[in-house]
Amino acid sequence: MIRINENFLKLQAGYLFPEISRRVRSYKAKNPDTKIISLGIGDVTQPLAPAVVEAMKRAVDEMTAADTLRGYGPEQGYEFLIEAIIENDFKARGVDIEPDEVFISDGAKCDTANIQEIFGLGNFVAIMDPSYPVYVDSNVMAGRTGKANENGQYDGIVYMPCTAENNFVPELPSRPVDLIYLCFPNNPTGAVASKEVLKKWVDFARENAAIILFDAAYEAFITEPDIPHSIYEVDGGKDVAIESRSFSKTAGFTGVRCAFTVVPKQLEAYTKGGGAVEVNPLWNRRHCTKFNGASYISQAGAAAIYTPQGKKQTRAIISAYMSNAALIRESLTKLGYTVYGGVNAPYLWMKTPDGVSSWDFFDRLLTEANVVGTPGSGFGPAGEGYLRLSAFAQPADVKEALKRFAKL
Amino acid sequence: MIRINENFLKLQAGYLFPEISRRVRSYKAKNPDTKIISLGIGDVTQPLAPAVVEAMKRAVDEMTAADTLRGYGPEQGYEFLIEAIIENDFKARGVDIEPDEVFISDGAKCDTANIQEIFGLGNFVAIMDPSYPVYVDSNVMAGRTGKANENGQYDGIVYMPCTAENNFVPELPSRPVDLIYLCFPNNPTGAVASKEVLKKWVDFARENAAIILFDAAYEAFITEPDIPHSIYEVDGGKDVAIESRSFSKTAGFTGVRCAFTVVPKQLEAYTKGGGAVEVNPLWNRRHCTKFNGASYISQAGAAAIYTPQGKKQTRAIISAYMSNAALIRESLTKLGYTVYGGVNAPYLWMKTPDGVSSWDFFDRLLTEANVVGTPGSGFGPAGEGYLRLSAFAQPADVKEALKRFAKL
Repeated sequence: MIRINENFLKLQAGYLFPEISRRVRSYKAKNPDTKIISLGIGDVTQPLAPAVVEAMKRAVDEMTAADTLRGYGPEQGYEFLIEAIIENDFKARGVDIEPDEVFISDGAKCDTANIQEIFGLGNFVAIMDPSYPVYVDSNVMAGRTGKANENGQYDGIVYMPCTAENNFVPELPSRPVDLIYLCFPNNPTGAVASKEVLKKWVDFARENAAIILFDAAYEAFITEPDIPHSIYEVDGGKDVAIESRSFSKTAGFTGVRCAFTVVPKQLEAYTKGGGAVEVNPLWNRRHCTKFNGASYISQAGAAAIYTPQGKKQTRAIISAYMSNAALIRESLTKLGYTVYGGVNAPYLWMKTPDGVSSWDFFDRLLTEANVVGTPGSGFGPAGEGYLRLSAFAQPADVKEALKRFAKL
Repeated sequence: MIRINENFLKLQAGYLFPEISRRVRSYKAKNPDTKIISLGIGDVTQPLAPAVVEAMKRAVDEMTAADTLRGYGPEQGYEFLIEAIIENDFKARGVDIEPDEVFISDGAKCDTANIQEIFGLGNFVAIMDPSYPVYVDSNVMAGRTGKANENGQYDGIVYMPCTAENNFVPELPSRPVDLIYLCFPNNPTGAVASKEVLKKWVDFARENAAIILFDAAYEAFITEPDIPHSIYEVDGGKDVAIESRSFSKTAGFTGVRCAFTVVPKQLEAYTKGGGAVEVNPLWNRRHCTKFNGASYISQAGAAAIYTPQGKKQTRAIISAYMSNAALIRESLTKLGYTVYGGVNAPYLWMKTPDGVSSWDFFDRLLTEANVVGTPGSGFGPAGEGYLRLSAFAQPADVKEALKRFAKL
């Protein structure tokens, strides 16, 4: 008799974004003429850079002739893209990465969800609160947790509260943990970590023989010069950290699908007997067995981001989003709201007024201003009392949304 | 201290295709002027159908304007593609499938590897021998097996030998099993299952409350009218089977990446307490948590396969491959070899002459004829004494390869 993986039954019913869609649909059904402005889900709104478009069309054209057709590529990704990544994302910042340390994939969500598969079920996982739900859910499904409590937090996970008091950068865990998920620039709070902060985490991981999964999906939005873009900019980072990046937000690839993860060859984990095992070949095996490479067309498009034209064009797109972020931050602050983030990240983390709950403020904003945000509590209990606003919107929509905020 | 998933250490070192590449590279290094013809790995060689190319270019063009840009799509895939699949692949063959039973993905390898995640670790898995290595390896990694024996077979997996005696269609297992991997038309043997055979399996699954993972990646290559293309053409199929399909071979998408899996809503699995649980929502949750949708461009290309032009063009491509298959089968048979498959599948399964081993014959073919096949033993012990030949080659190369066979 076939048994299900009962860990799935531990998962909380409502994933955040479907619940938001449900409420928006329901409001729209009753108010069909209202123009709703979404500063909710973090999906891009600016078209792809022309350099990317041209490269993808060239790639499609190559598929029209037998001698230029690309069939199965390397599961780890094409050399032309890996080399561009190494040169521009790492070497340019003083970090040496070797080609077989980079694994191209079809998305950072997939990578950050799948990475736990190469580690044992007995490991203790530490996750920022609030955080992107995938870190938690993928560990629940694998069986690394107990049941959820009334706050939606799972037994066996070490949650690390990120609050205004700690600048949304968590304290080191007071107990040993094994796998630590860090995301900077942070989704949802927009917080960043300085080199000193990251050094503290790298040292903690070393002392505890832990591994950090560093989610740097938003590094391209960093504007302040001192903020590290990679955890490998910190001494010892390559000894303890896996880093995930994405082209989704950097270059509008949410529908194109391309990302990558770096697994340094010096990174080690251990058997129950205490023997050290290299992590890179484990991920390589996982990647080659359960994945078959990202689309050639997507990889060709991604490589174009690193050409001089591509850099200039994607930089302009990011600047447009960051102008939105600056405007939201400034305007809401003027209106008397307390707003964090939006300086080195496309997300703003606003405190709800008068201590109302995240969902109550969400509903109020939806019904009174016809603006959609994301309730902070959807990212974890420490997000209660906050709303995430996304800068991934058209400038005119942002301006209109801010006018409506002013009338609230 | 972070522990690895020690199940990974059980995996056999040499994955089949890297070992083939190694031997080919080594021979080429010593014989740089030789033209080697590959009938080895099952990768396509014919360019994409023009209808697919046009659709992908249109999709790329949509990405150049904010109002037609496609960002995150539904994780389950776009409705336009799902509807085309239902209409053409199922309804046309008398099978009713609902839109939320279809899950678009970036590859059948991913789906067939990931599907086991939604089932418990205590399930007994039955796998054809020989078979595509991913079925076994994904279960090993998850921890559903013991160690491998000297034949490379894992404790805890029920292997079902496919031999000339049973027409490469395995007998029903003599013990109850829970998750059964069936692949028809078969990779590597090219064998197919009649409706009667599939009915026997569906009944067995029902009696044992088992689930069948039916891999139909090669259904488009079926030429004989009585052979079912889907396990759902069999009464009761939807009660017991998940079906995976792929555009990789059907339409040359090995580099484009698009596939799909059908999980019927009536399909149930059980908790330890014996409670029935619907499988479709479990896969949906897995899909939404660990995957973020296939590339919009790939999905737009896949939908074009179902247009009148697209059907005609892909049909012509498949016919070209099947002409290769017929020629290989005929020529080798004339030369006195025993050859199976190649009638409803792009693979031929040839018996090695004089009882030599698969790898010895591989080496002989490589060095004496400069033709690359795939050693049958690489797919499992029952594949020993066979070589898989792929029809995915240019017709001129096939003819040249056959000339060389004649001189062997």
